[in-house]
Amino acid sequence: MGAAVTPAMYDAHLLSASAAAKLIQSGELTVEHYVEALLQRIDERDEDVKAWAFLDRDQVLANARALDALTADQRGPLHGVVIGVKDVIYTKDMPTEFNSPIYKGHFPQVDAASIAILRASGALFLGKTVTTEFAATANGPGTFNPHDITRTPGGSSAGSGAAVGDFQVPVALGTQTGGSTIRPAAYCGIYGFKPTWGAVSREGQKFFSLTFDTLGIFSRHVDDLTMMTDAFKITDDQPSSFQSLEGARFALIKSMLWPAAEPATRDALARGAELLRSHGAIVEEIELPKSFDKLPQWYNVVLDMEGSKAFLPEYSSAVEQLDSLMVGYVENKSKYTQRQYVEALDNMAALRPQFDALVNGYDAVLTPSTPDEAPVGTDTGSYLFCKIWTGLHVPVVNIPGFGGPNNMPVGLSLVAPRYHDRHLLSVTSHVGPLFEAEGGWERPVHGPTTHREANGHDRENGNGSGHGNGNGNGHL
Amino acid sequence: MGAAVTPAMYDAHLLSASAAAKLIQSGELTVEHYVEALLQRIDERDEDVKAWAFLDRDQVLANARALDALTADQRGPLHGVVIGVKDVIYTKDMPTEFNSPIYKGHFPQVDAASIAILRASGALFLGKTVTTEFAATANGPGTFNPHDITRTPGGSSAGSGAAVGDFQVPVALGTQTGGSTIRPAAYCGIYGFKPTWGAVSREGQKFFSLTFDTLGIFSRHVDDLTMMTDAFKITDDQPSSFQSLEGARFALIKSMLWPAAEPATRDALARGAELLRSHGAIVEEIELPKSFDKLPQWYNVVLDMEGSKAFLPEYSSAVEQLDSLMVGYVENKSKYTQRQYVEALDNMAALRPQFDALVNGYDAVLTPSTPDEAPVGTDTGSYLFCKIWTGLHVPVVNIPGFGGPNNMPVGLSLVAPRYHDRHLLSVTSHVGPLFEAEGGWERPVHGPTTHREANGHDRENGNGSGHGNGNGNGHL
Repeated sequence: MGAAVTPAMYDAHLLSASAAAKLIQSGELTVEHYVEALLQRIDERDEDVKAWAFLDRDQVLANARALDALTADQRGPLHGVVIGVKDVIYTKDMPTEFNSPIYKGHFPQVDAASIAILRASGALFLGKTVTTEFAATANGPGTFNPHDITRTPGGSSAGSGAAVGDFQVPVALGTQTGGSTIRPAAYCGIYGFKPTWGAVSREGQKFFSLTFDTLGIFSRHVDDLTMMTDAFKITDDQPSSFQSLEGARFALIKSMLWPAAEPATRDALARGAELLRSHGAIVEEIELPKSFDKLPQWYNVVLDMEGSKAFLPEYSSAVEQLDSLMVGYVENKSKYTQRQYVEALDNMAALRPQFDALVNGYDAVLTPSTPDEAPVGTDTGSYLFCKIWTGLHVPVVNIPGFGGPNNMPVGLSLVAPRYHDRHLLSVTSHVGPLFEAEGGWERPVHGPTTHREANGHDRENGNGSGHGNGNGNGHL
Repeated sequence: MGAAVTPAMYDAHLLSASAAAKLIQSGELTVEHYVEALLQRIDERDEDVKAWAFLDRDQVLANARALDALTADQRGPLHGVVIGVKDVIYTKDMPTEFNSPIYKGHFPQVDAASIAILRASGALFLGKTVTTEFAATANGPGTFNPHDITRTPGGSSAGSGAAVGDFQVPVALGTQTGGSTIRPAAYCGIYGFKPTWGAVSREGQKFFSLTFDTLGIFSRHVDDLTMMTDAFKITDDQPSSFQSLEGARFALIKSMLWPAAEPATRDALARGAELLRSHGAIVEEIELPKSFDKLPQWYNVVLDMEGSKAFLPEYSSAVEQLDSLMVGYVENKSKYTQRQYVEALDNMAALRPQFDALVNGYDAVLTPSTPDEAPVGTDTGSYLFCKIWTGLHVPVVNIPGFGGPNNMPVGLSLVAPRYHDRHLLSVTSHVGPLFEAEGGWERPVHGPTTHREANGHDRENGNGSGHGNGNGNGHL
């Protein structure tokens, strides 16, 4: 409590969560001052980015002061860590609205499992971040890419990706059913981590697909991913022995979806492999066996059929307020049979051990995150490449560092076998800094929104951020 | 509204839900009078059975009157259907406490997916039924078998099984992770239906194991299971062509767990097969292939490892109030590795299509539900046989009709391949009445609790029913 004002707090929004927590621990920064810096950053930028579905400044500052008042022995391992929460994850002290008109004002006082774990560890939740409707649609959702507000931040964890990419919060939670963590991380130029399916309880996250839904974590620093992984007690069987890129072995997998890769992604993948090789790593291109060819189709079947179960409650009670995508699931517009569904489930399940064995001799897999830079407009872009890894239940990290023709970030994914999450983060702690240093794209800190007339930015679908409706733009 | 008092309402608690709904539809019974009959039955019996964790008579009667006030076109397909809800399923108008001291008074105003669907269909929720702690432990939970209060009703859906078996409510929701629906149904002499895994969204049910947790349904009549299956829009690819036991084909599977079967179960299975044969069915005993031998062990690994994720929130925030079973999961007392876990997941996944193919030529599988009658005491009994089917994700129905040496009910299970739920209910609609008519055990309607001195009934662990603490007994 009552630390003196120090230079650290003026640009504290630039810190990683781990660095901020260290300053708070040493008394150089208070949680309150830290939160003030983040709120100031939000105030400067919100009109452009619109990342927040709910944010109660007074409540957050009160919570920050309460944390500052704790004695050292009362403080948890995440003391001073400030986290944004995608608005499909239940929080007992904030509404959870799923960006759905059906759930306007929905505020059950319950924490998701992930939130309860983080709260018990002393984390502070800054607010709820904007999601596409039920983390399922590809529209909007009214949040804009901090690096070019004419472009999507990706989805469905749009607000989490944009807020972290824009230095409004150091860490945010998202979810991934298709590519909802990896894609916005790639588009916003940050790290996105989808742990092994089931490694963190998904209780209290809105359901879409039982087979695919996974918690996701966003940050600008690998350390923060590791810190969160500690908090969630995600464990590998053995500690990672990864020490250096020198002699490390990477499998490069372009996959059956490679024809979808645009030049920005092709260049990034080539450059990534080249950087690894130039630092002593072995990068071998390998092919997924033929048995994987139908994986994307099987993914689609499972998604549709599980969506039909997940959205039956809303369909039953408020179909007129439900996006046509979900109505289509429940009404089985795709005409999938249960037989196709169980075959898709079984076939995908059979691929999982095959994949783990295939890449067993490598330290990680290097593969595209998205086909291209973030597109212009409000469509949240393609999650094609992510389907494979979501379906295989493996851990994935998006690593920033590369740029496309429009100087927008292009991410690459590292992938490891199931429950090699900590090993994957060890590898990432070497690969990430390399790509960030030499990949050619540097994360800018954009200046405050300037207030001008709208000049044609595509914001027709902008909505849902729930506070402020300004039309600031042109900050780049 | 305002139907005249008719004879139907005096013993309306004896009706199936379908029959009650028909009387309500025709105006012969009001929802209010129906609920009054059920509440009166509860008043008479609660001191003995203690099935309810929460029951607000005024609220239920008000809800009943509100339903009666609806015009015909406002009434849903489940109008007049009254349902008990296991207290691990969120209900927006009643507390959800999981029989855990951590969650005393826990009342987030949110409906589980199953509840939202049923509510939108016009169902009335009578109250919350007692569960063992988090539907995970085998202790207590303070509910007693209506047919002998010195015995367990089974668990973990103890209150749902006991309340339906005791004519306190016609239908109840439970859950099944091991045998938590089939076991109490068998012990209480009623139908219990575990649909195919994933056929009903499990959003809003407390998590234990993502791979096994399933909603369960209790009733005294097959028609009611069908009605609920309609409400949940569970579909097979083809309508069932099952018409008659004459020429029907059943696979009798004793399984690798048969050595655990006590005489009561051995006799019931023999008698069940004999009854089917005597009514023209073909019953062929088949063996599960060797590849299934380790299924029970794999089940145990997955349960432990997923329990470790599910209970981390409670472990993190209130370990001292958590049963040692769950503490053991989180601390991985069994010392399972992640490798063992993914192998167990993968191996079980590989068995699922094998099983579906194995029994493809049969109308259903006949197999034990439990090793024996309900044991004396508060341990909720063995769920050994149920593990197989829970792990295989197949639909299972417990059918009552047989009795053991203590005249307690002994159930048998019918099983079908995944997403043959409606076919399984069609078969059950023929097998159930046969077993009930000729199996030798008839469900008694026990008289009101009589108030006497305690005479040694094993109630030391009785607790948790949350209302009334009488020690009535000896009603048999």
